[in-house]
Amino acid sequence: MNEAVIILVAPQMGENIGAAARAMKNFGFRNLRIVAPRDGWPNEKADNMSVGAIDIIHNAKVYDDLSAAISDLEYVYATTSVPRDMNKEYVTSKKLAQELAVRDCKFGIMFGRENSGLNNDEIMLANKILTIDTTDFNSLNIAHAVAVICHEIFKSNTAQHSPNLQELATKNEVALFLNHLEEELDNKNFFKSLDKKPRMMRNITNIFTRVDKLSNAEIQTLRGILKSLSN
Amino acid sequence: MNEAVIILVAPQMGENIGAAARAMKNFGFRNLRIVAPRDGWPNEKADNMSVGAIDIIHNAKVYDDLSAAISDLEYVYATTSVPRDMNKEYVTSKKLAQELAVRDCKFGIMFGRENSGLNNDEIMLANKILTIDTTDFNSLNIAHAVAVICHEIFKSNTAQHSPNLQELATKNEVALFLNHLEEELDNKNFFKSLDKKPRMMRNITNIFTRVDKLSNAEIQTLRGILKSLSN
Repeated sequence: MNEAVIILVAPQMGENIGAAARAMKNFGFRNLRIVAPRDGWPNEKADNMSVGAIDIIHNAKVYDDLSAAISDLEYVYATTSVPRDMNKEYVTSKKLAQELAVRDCKFGIMFGRENSGLNNDEIMLANKILTIDTTDFNSLNIAHAVAVICHEIFKSNTAQHSPNLQELATKNEVALFLNHLEEELDNKNFFKSLDKKPRMMRNITNIFTRVDKLSNAEIQTLRGILKSLSN
Repeated sequence: MNEAVIILVAPQMGENIGAAARAMKNFGFRNLRIVAPRDGWPNEKADNMSVGAIDIIHNAKVYDDLSAAISDLEYVYATTSVPRDMNKEYVTSKKLAQELAVRDCKFGIMFGRENSGLNNDEIMLANKILTIDTTDFNSLNIAHAVAVICHEIFKSNTAQHSPNLQELATKNEVALFLNHLEEELDNKNFFKSLDKKPRMMRNITNIFTRVDKLSNAEIQTLRGILKSLSN
């Protein structure tokens, strides 16, 4: 079984963290990661709302920033209420089961803060956008979103998984390559203005996070190319 | 579309009624009926938790007993966390979409009280039991249960939508980029031996052809990077 890691990014209310943990446990998910919870950690309200899922709360890992929280994962989804214009492929909740049936790797699903979801810099780090099918009234409670997605994965888990032939690159390896690339581009004065640099780097990052099943060996190839070209 | 009536039976906490209303609206359900709410009606906590779904709260119908609440419906499901031994047919959440595709009538779905669900007398009134697929930790928050079921029905009713936001790169544009890359790598003597070159170029090509939906603009970015690094 693919056991997704659930990543709550900058959640504001402890109640929602607890409710999300409970939903995770209903559907067999154990790995909760929390990035920069607004009210600190531990959080009594999270404990109280988790009911029988207090073990998930106790085992939750807390991070200061999102990159650290996803560094060991091989594939990451960013949940958004509407598809964003980021030229990143997206999958709807309707098609998720089908998609996951062939995704045999260590993956995570990010959920954004209650009032504004995930921002573009956060979404950029994901391989793909995951959109929950809703009406135009698309603002879901965060724990509801976790419940809906975890249920969707749980009920589809009879799917056959294909063996993984190559070791996949972790998010950290991809990040190191991108840092290296940024450095060399800086050296060459590629980013003409500092204003435009963040947006340009976001576009570049988006290209490489969309390579399906990028392997460890391929990251080495890309770094070799970079080194060679920059000489 | 089958628009199910959602029936909350003896709900205890106003917060859960409000959260359930919000989930209903996310997935296009408007008809909420509430049987004997513990804390009376209206309920300020329900109002607050409903966020943008206050219209559903205001239009909710409140009944003293379950029979009255379902009297005009043609088919009713009773949601339970585990199939009960009642000699009543049941459907799991996994099979619900399939089931509803052929159920063309006015139907409702009952959800029980927070601490003990629906009792046997209440279940008896249903045509069929509806069980949400869960692990053995099967106690769902009532609003989560409403969210999961409403999503399940909604996504089986929506058509597939896939807006293509950006112009995609043609195979020819990708090939031109790869030719350019090969040329620059030749200049830098990247391919140490001619023997290995075809295999190495194949590996490199494989990386870039696996970028999901590579756009025209992104190919330009890659060519810009290449030009800059090779200077």
